[in-house]
Amino acid sequence: MTRPTPESSPFLAVLAGRRPSRRPIWVMRQAGRYLPEYRKVRETASFHTMCTTPELAAEVTLQPLRRFDLDAGIIFSDILTPLGPMGAEFDFSQGGPKLTAPLREERAFEALELVEPREELGFVAEAIGLVTSERPEIPLIGFGGAPLTLASYLVEGGGSKDFRHIKALIYSRPEVAVALLDKLAEQVARHLEMQVEAGCSAVQVFDSWAGILHTDDYRRFAVPGIAKIMARLAPLGVPRILFSKGGLTNLPWLLETGADALSLDWTCDLADAAERAPRTPLQGNLDPVVLHGSETEIVRRAEAVCRSGDRAAGHVFNLGHGILTETPPEALALLIDTVHRHQPED
Amino acid sequence: MTRPTPESSPFLAVLAGRRPSRRPIWVMRQAGRYLPEYRKVRETASFHTMCTTPELAAEVTLQPLRRFDLDAGIIFSDILTPLGPMGAEFDFSQGGPKLTAPLREERAFEALELVEPREELGFVAEAIGLVTSERPEIPLIGFGGAPLTLASYLVEGGGSKDFRHIKALIYSRPEVAVALLDKLAEQVARHLEMQVEAGCSAVQVFDSWAGILHTDDYRRFAVPGIAKIMARLAPLGVPRILFSKGGLTNLPWLLETGADALSLDWTCDLADAAERAPRTPLQGNLDPVVLHGSETEIVRRAEAVCRSGDRAAGHVFNLGHGILTETPPEALALLIDTVHRHQPED
Repeated sequence: MTRPTPESSPFLAVLAGRRPSRRPIWVMRQAGRYLPEYRKVRETASFHTMCTTPELAAEVTLQPLRRFDLDAGIIFSDILTPLGPMGAEFDFSQGGPKLTAPLREERAFEALELVEPREELGFVAEAIGLVTSERPEIPLIGFGGAPLTLASYLVEGGGSKDFRHIKALIYSRPEVAVALLDKLAEQVARHLEMQVEAGCSAVQVFDSWAGILHTDDYRRFAVPGIAKIMARLAPLGVPRILFSKGGLTNLPWLLETGADALSLDWTCDLADAAERAPRTPLQGNLDPVVLHGSETEIVRRAEAVCRSGDRAAGHVFNLGHGILTETPPEALALLIDTVHRHQPED
Repeated sequence: MTRPTPESSPFLAVLAGRRPSRRPIWVMRQAGRYLPEYRKVRETASFHTMCTTPELAAEVTLQPLRRFDLDAGIIFSDILTPLGPMGAEFDFSQGGPKLTAPLREERAFEALELVEPREELGFVAEAIGLVTSERPEIPLIGFGGAPLTLASYLVEGGGSKDFRHIKALIYSRPEVAVALLDKLAEQVARHLEMQVEAGCSAVQVFDSWAGILHTDDYRRFAVPGIAKIMARLAPLGVPRILFSKGGLTNLPWLLETGADALSLDWTCDLADAAERAPRTPLQGNLDPVVLHGSETEIVRRAEAVCRSGDRAAGHVFNLGHGILTETPPEALALLIDTVHRHQPED
């Protein structure tokens, strides 16, 4: 099977620093609950079953690619998926993910076992195989969570309002936190390697909770793990995207991770980011809630993001965060069309 | 009664651009639940009763001033207090504040009535009188919510995860949003005027949800209301502090508001802020969770904030957000002592 290349794919062209034939767009959580066909699958299976059953994961990954003219797919999975086989199985049945007992002590972190993804997470590789054989022309993105975000879930035992437990760990026993973050980085690196070998043409690391720390702490605690992941992926030759929340505050450190492209949240202006990262392709960053606004505003705001993106070394259009469950699919269709039509001014 | 002056108060000295006799410190939510004496009052009265009963509000305002060597007090109240008399009474009895029916339509916004604080919110002025007559030497801060934050509460009907309703309003009917924000600015300005006339030596505007919008939208929708408030307060001659979440992303626009000092959240470095706002005294910005860390880390991190603050035109030490309910009071005592001892390097 031939994989998509920068010649055939606008998405890969931008990430390779080339001029694309059109501005590429995909959106975070595009395989998701806003689609009626996704909800239909979800009625028959739990979120966990969908993640771990290759046919179901492949089906919902393919759904948005059938419905929309998207420039990339992203495998349906969850950033917490690799943590189950390590010994921390999250329960998704009560709304947000929950651990029966949050991990707080050093020995609990030490008990987390590094696993071989081919043995324990083979269902992800299988799902990737199913998707890429059905749509070999569309680049498929593999993904993983950034170590800080994963550590937060483990230590808080789920989502959190103030992240007091993971922060108290960092502020009291920094060396214990560093060891945990490093172990998670190792597992995520292995998981991403497997996804690329299974057929993914790009990877994205999600640091959804990058905005919880002081910028010096972000550099000290979050960046080394991300850099380790990026370095491990480098020999595989696929573009590595880093999504990070927290506006531009951590931008200098994000550049230090070695990521090939940065995906930014909706609070910052891509033109400002481009000024400070002139050689890095940028991805983003329309506020997902704009898709709940009027058609006029969707078009106006999408074009504004395109104009800011034109200042970057390359621009992959995306939302600044995952698409919301209640978004009308028609709004996404309008967005995709607007982005593809928009011409750079130069 | 003589009010504190920049000569007598390190807090007012910094805000006046002068060298203080010591580095001033106060902390957001210092009159709060982390104090056993506060919890004792709270056992006898609801949060709403405490806000609206001058003796109780004064008592809890005074509690931290008795226990700690703080450089300023802040009147116990809530940013939502002025909204009740306008016609939007929040219920605090179920955890977070809740409106029976969120305000979503233009006529609901138009029905909000501008009120005379002296008539409808006199209990706040009375509480201020009680505090300043007991502790006339300590500057007391009056406060209000920024229009965007207040509008978010009204339109979401309480707290929110994604702020989709206030944003959908802004993205669909911007002119309706602007009218609402302007009305709220007018009410907050009146409320702050009353607080100054009642004895407050400084005011702070809280824009807790400043980080929800793209920076261009923040400038367009949030800044005009804040600027209006600042302009209305200018003739009274008291320093006006603006607290804004969202790191440094919106810094240029915060400077446009006319605020005398900026209070920043814990994610950014005060030295970076000082570089971009060299003439503005800064307030902040230790992560509140640091007070849950080890003593060594509290001291080390407080000193780091002081060193960054030394680069600013002036530094009022504070947390980057409100002190947490579970914080041991001893940790705050250690922080205050550390800050007062720290000497600038020059």
